[in-house]
Amino acid sequence: MRGAVLHAPGDIRVEARPDPTIIEPTDAVIRLSATCICGSDLWPYRGIEAVEGPAPMGHEYVGIVEEVGSAVTTIRPGQFVIGSFFASDNTCEICRAGYQSSCIHRELMGAIGTQADLARIPLADGTLVATPEVPTPDLIPSFLAASDVLGTGWFGAVAAEVGPGKTVAVVGDGAVGLLGVLAARQLGAERIIAMSRHEPRQQLALAFGATDIVEERGDEGVARIKDLTDGLGAHSVIEAVGTQESMMQAIRSTRPGGHVGYVGVAHDVQLPGDELFFSHTHLHGGPAPVRRFLPELIELISKRTIDPGKVFDLTLPLDDAADGYRAMDERRAIKTLLSL
Amino acid sequence: MRGAVLHAPGDIRVEARPDPTIIEPTDAVIRLSATCICGSDLWPYRGIEAVEGPAPMGHEYVGIVEEVGSAVTTIRPGQFVIGSFFASDNTCEICRAGYQSSCIHRELMGAIGTQADLARIPLADGTLVATPEVPTPDLIPSFLAASDVLGTGWFGAVAAEVGPGKTVAVVGDGAVGLLGVLAARQLGAERIIAMSRHEPRQQLALAFGATDIVEERGDEGVARIKDLTDGLGAHSVIEAVGTQESMMQAIRSTRPGGHVGYVGVAHDVQLPGDELFFSHTHLHGGPAPVRRFLPELIELISKRTIDPGKVFDLTLPLDDAADGYRAMDERRAIKTLLSL
Repeated sequence: MRGAVLHAPGDIRVEARPDPTIIEPTDAVIRLSATCICGSDLWPYRGIEAVEGPAPMGHEYVGIVEEVGSAVTTIRPGQFVIGSFFASDNTCEICRAGYQSSCIHRELMGAIGTQADLARIPLADGTLVATPEVPTPDLIPSFLAASDVLGTGWFGAVAAEVGPGKTVAVVGDGAVGLLGVLAARQLGAERIIAMSRHEPRQQLALAFGATDIVEERGDEGVARIKDLTDGLGAHSVIEAVGTQESMMQAIRSTRPGGHVGYVGVAHDVQLPGDELFFSHTHLHGGPAPVRRFLPELIELISKRTIDPGKVFDLTLPLDDAADGYRAMDERRAIKTLLSL
Repeated sequence: MRGAVLHAPGDIRVEARPDPTIIEPTDAVIRLSATCICGSDLWPYRGIEAVEGPAPMGHEYVGIVEEVGSAVTTIRPGQFVIGSFFASDNTCEICRAGYQSSCIHRELMGAIGTQADLARIPLADGTLVATPEVPTPDLIPSFLAASDVLGTGWFGAVAAEVGPGKTVAVVGDGAVGLLGVLAARQLGAERIIAMSRHEPRQQLALAFGATDIVEERGDEGVARIKDLTDGLGAHSVIEAVGTQESMMQAIRSTRPGGHVGYVGVAHDVQLPGDELFFSHTHLHGGPAPVRRFLPELIELISKRTIDPGKVFDLTLPLDDAADGYRAMDERRAIKTLLSL
């Protein structure tokens, strides 16, 4: 099969890789219907995260089940399935509490690499959720978004305790931040302030339900949020970047007693304990337990209530993955879908 | 009147200070029935927090109302009242959300100094809660504890989302940690692990409802908590110290999806963003909004359901405040009550 492999920073190649097979009896093998490039794939692509030797890439996936192991009982060949970037058993105490991305048996899909024709999915019964029927092609981008960026934006909104009557600010205008806006709208937020200075992303934020756009960043951005909230700050802030500046902007934009939901993978972030203490904020986040939300998200997409697939503003064949990485690195594309 | 004044680190003197008067129409003046020394008073006493010139000390208080300003409508002379270390209007949006210690009009009682015969209480209607009747003397220590350490331990437990069926760990065996144990018991925790290596404090923790004692600290303490919780960590951890070590111990003792309630005033704490991210914990805390809990705590004390006054293991006359500070500094006393 073909698969995207990162050989060194900036050096992505689509090359022949061995076809995956069932290794554990709990595995499935799926044929990808589509895959995509994640903002977090840019960390190693840019050399900010170390790459040791050629690394298969990709952790987002939807596809048709080809084969299942002998211990798989609920997933069947022929089903269209969606999973998340962590495989999880969905039965341990941590999974049952809704934190499947910290499952005691979790496996990182990024190590398997789903920017490929086929992929082995560990713990198939726990990891995969089948759609009611094989979807029409126009729904595939939205289901693919549910695999990570929609589920992550949704978790950011849930972690920020978004709800009716609340004012929500979203720090970060990448795919996750934009889908955090969509999630906030679905969860009933009264006012949604998207922080973005990029016109096409502002437009998408508005399409997803943002009521206000703030272009300022850092202290000026915080001041604008305070201006818009009687000097108090937002009730809920979704952080979808992962830098020191974005985390502090999120915390400082939140009112005392309010909630920060942070889903940008933290890089070189140190939170000052005294400021956090006196901020009186709630802080929650981490790698999104997307599996928790998949049944609900699949239903919303199947009914066409939401259209998260709009975040894909570039579609390329898998063979052109290198162009897709380049377009996202240069911020020419929000998110690249790789077709198969 | 007499009042305790910190002149320099280690130099506490009880000296003549001017009697307080009504300054704002929303003020009250109370005659203290008892006051006490807080663990946080030790920060400036030890020179860890800077002291600029002679500083009146104390922020815990119960007493009888002597006089009220013209705009005070609910508090009346002769009532026995309890307030907290932040005066608050109890009407602003932040107060109504339960965060009175971040009230938009808050005033710090520590700047007024309640280790004294009399004290001016700003925003009396919002700040003070009267007991149903003037209590018998044996209840005064418990009501005094409600002014800060009980309310703070209670907030730690609430912030850590303590509840029925949960396993709770408490980091810190000072008065706040011990009363965090009491709060966890009242809030229905199934198992309460007190982390303490001091025998008298262990005894008090057990009396307040601890089910297990862990003497280890740091990484070893974390390992013991994991041992006691099927390798997962506690559901809820109350942090009641405020150092880097105690915060990391609290975060690492919490299971993914669990809650850290931190009420130790943070000193030189820096939280690593990546570890926090992958810990999947909820983090909430800060200066306790004691006012939120006072009505409930007053009821529990009045009915003698709880006896938080047990944390006072040393009682001295106000004139001997210096001895009281010394005893707490040297950990000979958990908490010193100053009688009047």
